[in-house]
Amino acid sequence: MDIVHIGKAKTVYRTENRDEYLMEFRDDVTAFNGKRKTTVPDKGRYNAQISARLFELLEQHGVATHYKALAGDGRMLVKAVEIIPLEIIARNIAAGSVVRKYPFKEGQRLIPPVLVIDFKSDAYGDPMLNDDLIRALRLATEEELATVRELTLRVNAILKDYLNKRGLLLPDFKLEFGKARDGKILVADEISCDTCRLWLKESGQSVDKDVFRYERGDLITAYEEAAKRILH
Amino acid sequence: MDIVHIGKAKTVYRTENRDEYLMEFRDDVTAFNGKRKTTVPDKGRYNAQISARLFELLEQHGVATHYKALAGDGRMLVKAVEIIPLEIIARNIAAGSVVRKYPFKEGQRLIPPVLVIDFKSDAYGDPMLNDDLIRALRLATEEELATVRELTLRVNAILKDYLNKRGLLLPDFKLEFGKARDGKILVADEISCDTCRLWLKESGQSVDKDVFRYERGDLITAYEEAAKRILH
Repeated sequence: MDIVHIGKAKTVYRTENRDEYLMEFRDDVTAFNGKRKTTVPDKGRYNAQISARLFELLEQHGVATHYKALAGDGRMLVKAVEIIPLEIIARNIAAGSVVRKYPFKEGQRLIPPVLVIDFKSDAYGDPMLNDDLIRALRLATEEELATVRELTLRVNAILKDYLNKRGLLLPDFKLEFGKARDGKILVADEISCDTCRLWLKESGQSVDKDVFRYERGDLITAYEEAAKRILH
Repeated sequence: MDIVHIGKAKTVYRTENRDEYLMEFRDDVTAFNGKRKTTVPDKGRYNAQISARLFELLEQHGVATHYKALAGDGRMLVKAVEIIPLEIIARNIAAGSVVRKYPFKEGQRLIPPVLVIDFKSDAYGDPMLNDDLIRALRLATEEELATVRELTLRVNAILKDYLNKRGLLLPDFKLEFGKARDGKILVADEISCDTCRLWLKESGQSVDKDVFRYERGDLITAYEEAAKRILH
């Protein structure tokens, strides 16, 4: 199959249907812009399952996503979209890079949530953007940017509520958006333990990629715990 | 005299008048967040003179600044303000860090101008901000932020026009703002060869701190040329 895109942890393939792509969630894990990497069996499968469940949840709440169906272990059929080269990070609790970069305290609640938008570019190391830069670089129109921001806040509210009922806190997560053939903006990429910070409510323990980033134990045990709560 | 603040290139003193500070423009030059530094005789004097002239120009155009008067070589009397910890960078032509961080071409015109706001904090290395972060960190109110942005665009238009008539291009510059005792927001700090990129229109040659940053010749010759054009 023709490859549309090879990312750090996913490969996207063309299918016979021009409106559909096949997304493969690989078992590769990377952190700090690819400086650390390894491979963890079953990681791709868990992330695909979690993403599928959360995309379904968003659709149930009227948020359009690129998700169509799971297609075997670690594989997902999605609508063909052109990815908007922005990474939208929504933060509810300060953790990670935002604590290193700015005078926030780890664990500090951010109400209302803080959005940060990065330029999705491996070549440039995903630098942070602002509205003026997004305009000058022609990465999105003003209307697209407003849509993407509003959708991120809606997604945040839906996910927070769903996860909270399952004993999980959502300190932050990253979204990507794509433009479908008809011009509609869809939530794309993935929503998984690789792209969300997830903390167990009872203990504050991480069940996300921070387990790998900061060597906090066994990655797959953590992902399994997150999957158990999110899927059931 | 009591010191209010010691910066990389200026020292601010209290005076007998509680509404006034004395600002000393030192001959120290630093670049890349203080990683390179040296001392260049007469630099402080030129920057004080240029700042005084440009502050006067802004006042003539109805933009309030902290400037009161020059007070001897390299010294300036200013209104006592509390500095808002934001560095507002206005860019008309892509140059320097913005070209390294993003896919802009050196020399590319940015119309309308691009504003970038950094957190003025030596401890955090002046990281870039966005509106959500400014709110969450309580660095400025929404109203102050809107004021600061609007003033920066007005200052940009005034400076560009004035400098253009004197054969100078203004690729970018940095502004700081302060709150006076009565709450009014004033253009503060300095507007000089240390805080503006200035290119000779005829040759594109830098007459600003880039001469030091990128070792493009004699700093004081460049500052002298800039002063000659700006002061007369």
